[in-house]
Amino acid sequence: MHKVKKVAISVGDLNGIGIELILKNHDIVSNMIEPVYIIDEEMLYQAYKLLDIDMPSNFRTASPNSKYFNIQSGEISKESGAYSFDSFKKAVELAQNNEVDAICTLPIHKKAWELSGISYKGHTDALRDFCNMDAIMMLGCPNLYVALFTEHIPLKNVPSALTFGKLEKFLLDFNSSAKPKNIVGVLGLNPHAGDGGVLGNEEEIITSAILGANEKIGNKIYNQTPLVPDIAFTPNVRKNYKYLIAMYHDQGLAPLKALYFDESINVSLNLPFIRTSVDHGTAFDKAYKKADISGASYINAIKYITDLK
Amino acid sequence: MHKVKKVAISVGDLNGIGIELILKNHDIVSNMIEPVYIIDEEMLYQAYKLLDIDMPSNFRTASPNSKYFNIQSGEISKESGAYSFDSFKKAVELAQNNEVDAICTLPIHKKAWELSGISYKGHTDALRDFCNMDAIMMLGCPNLYVALFTEHIPLKNVPSALTFGKLEKFLLDFNSSAKPKNIVGVLGLNPHAGDGGVLGNEEEIITSAILGANEKIGNKIYNQTPLVPDIAFTPNVRKNYKYLIAMYHDQGLAPLKALYFDESINVSLNLPFIRTSVDHGTAFDKAYKKADISGASYINAIKYITDLK
Repeated sequence: MHKVKKVAISVGDLNGIGIELILKNHDIVSNMIEPVYIIDEEMLYQAYKLLDIDMPSNFRTASPNSKYFNIQSGEISKESGAYSFDSFKKAVELAQNNEVDAICTLPIHKKAWELSGISYKGHTDALRDFCNMDAIMMLGCPNLYVALFTEHIPLKNVPSALTFGKLEKFLLDFNSSAKPKNIVGVLGLNPHAGDGGVLGNEEEIITSAILGANEKIGNKIYNQTPLVPDIAFTPNVRKNYKYLIAMYHDQGLAPLKALYFDESINVSLNLPFIRTSVDHGTAFDKAYKKADISGASYINAIKYITDLK
Repeated sequence: MHKVKKVAISVGDLNGIGIELILKNHDIVSNMIEPVYIIDEEMLYQAYKLLDIDMPSNFRTASPNSKYFNIQSGEISKESGAYSFDSFKKAVELAQNNEVDAICTLPIHKKAWELSGISYKGHTDALRDFCNMDAIMMLGCPNLYVALFTEHIPLKNVPSALTFGKLEKFLLDFNSSAKPKNIVGVLGLNPHAGDGGVLGNEEEIITSAILGANEKIGNKIYNQTPLVPDIAFTPNVRKNYKYLIAMYHDQGLAPLKALYFDESINVSLNLPFIRTSVDHGTAFDKAYKKADISGASYINAIKYITDLK
């Protein structure tokens, strides 16, 4: 039998739907892992009274170093921004001190972080700084995960960001942190994967980096020839891969979200600990409104952690 | 009641699956349109004997100006390449002489064209030359069509190909040839559609071109703000659009093919006549093998023609 994992769960922006997802899914989640929710008793009391739902039993919390404020459903506020950051920071601390095995984060609001003077653009950005490591961003669901070689950069900067050294390192890092059990598909950069050089030649770099990584790993983890990007996500091809490596943001995320928008999660790999997250926002329009909120992404974010060795 | 349209259907590479699709779907197709198949009697006889199926009745043909050859299932041959080109060329001639209302092409093999000395890379390339017009390439199915602003160029050349003048003209041409009845979604170029300029600023050009085109058309045909590329294909957004305009090949085709690979067709717009095509290849591995071949793409290619005013 597996050891039950302990997971710190940051509550996200309390003016949004995070705390509702936590409370409504506690019974399911606590059967999968041992959750530690990063919220203090006063804020928790305020939230479940506003939500008008019973407080779940066996609900273990740890307090962030943050101030009480009045929850205002759907508002962008600096107080809520600061609280969500402190909840996240405490979760990271627990992971860094080995008090938990992983962390799972609920959605924060970037503008609220900005209002409260936090300079990070989001969780992944902050994690890179906290851990001083090249975190790898991966999105997906148990059917298919897509890791991004480049992320939040203008499209015109993508081709020059693709170098042999960077891609080989990325492939080595991905392998050691995602620990794929089956072959991983690396996509080409150009239409038709360059069509033999007629439509671009960056596929030569990609092919070399794949070869280099496979040799260093001592195993054919990666497909030898870059996949044709617009074919990689078709049913007959994607059935062969649990993981795909996209060269840029929309190459990977447009087809992934077309297929699996509601179930997808966000995983930060290549850190000293695993961090997963839902892949949706604060949904301010639905918060505290007894709306029908899908917990599919949240449950998959927990499932990713339980599935890891 | 609609007038039944007359459509010239080129047979594609006779060593592939085109003729089998034609023969097996003749009853369905001839209930939708009045087909004129561009094949001569001898080649037709050879094909249906090889396929071991009965010759459909009411099968009207027109002969291409091409030579008899022996069909060799799955072979890349210059004779078959030449025949497929001549069949296509005859279909175009019938359209140019107004003897048919539209053409539908079955798959050719690029290498076979090359072997027979044809310099065009494919149908669309040839059509641009025959008609001396900027044909627009659109792929999709009745659920969603995606037109490509740039197509077969290296990714690194995409940002510089995006100019106000070219995009505005494209949007005007698309509107006059596709005749969309509802709002058409134009995608941004960068991740998060540039995120206010932080991730690229080509969205300013796109926004201006949309504004210019809408003003010249005198109607808000296009969405005023470029769509976020990785969100445009999610269920909640795509339900609002029958047509999307992608800035580059894989931005549009990776999500489209992830969703609708088997049903998709290829349409050439902005020509003096409409040309549709299946969106799959010659399937040499399945030809003349009594394989189970989906006619979904072929039927949708015909359906697109019948749905046009």
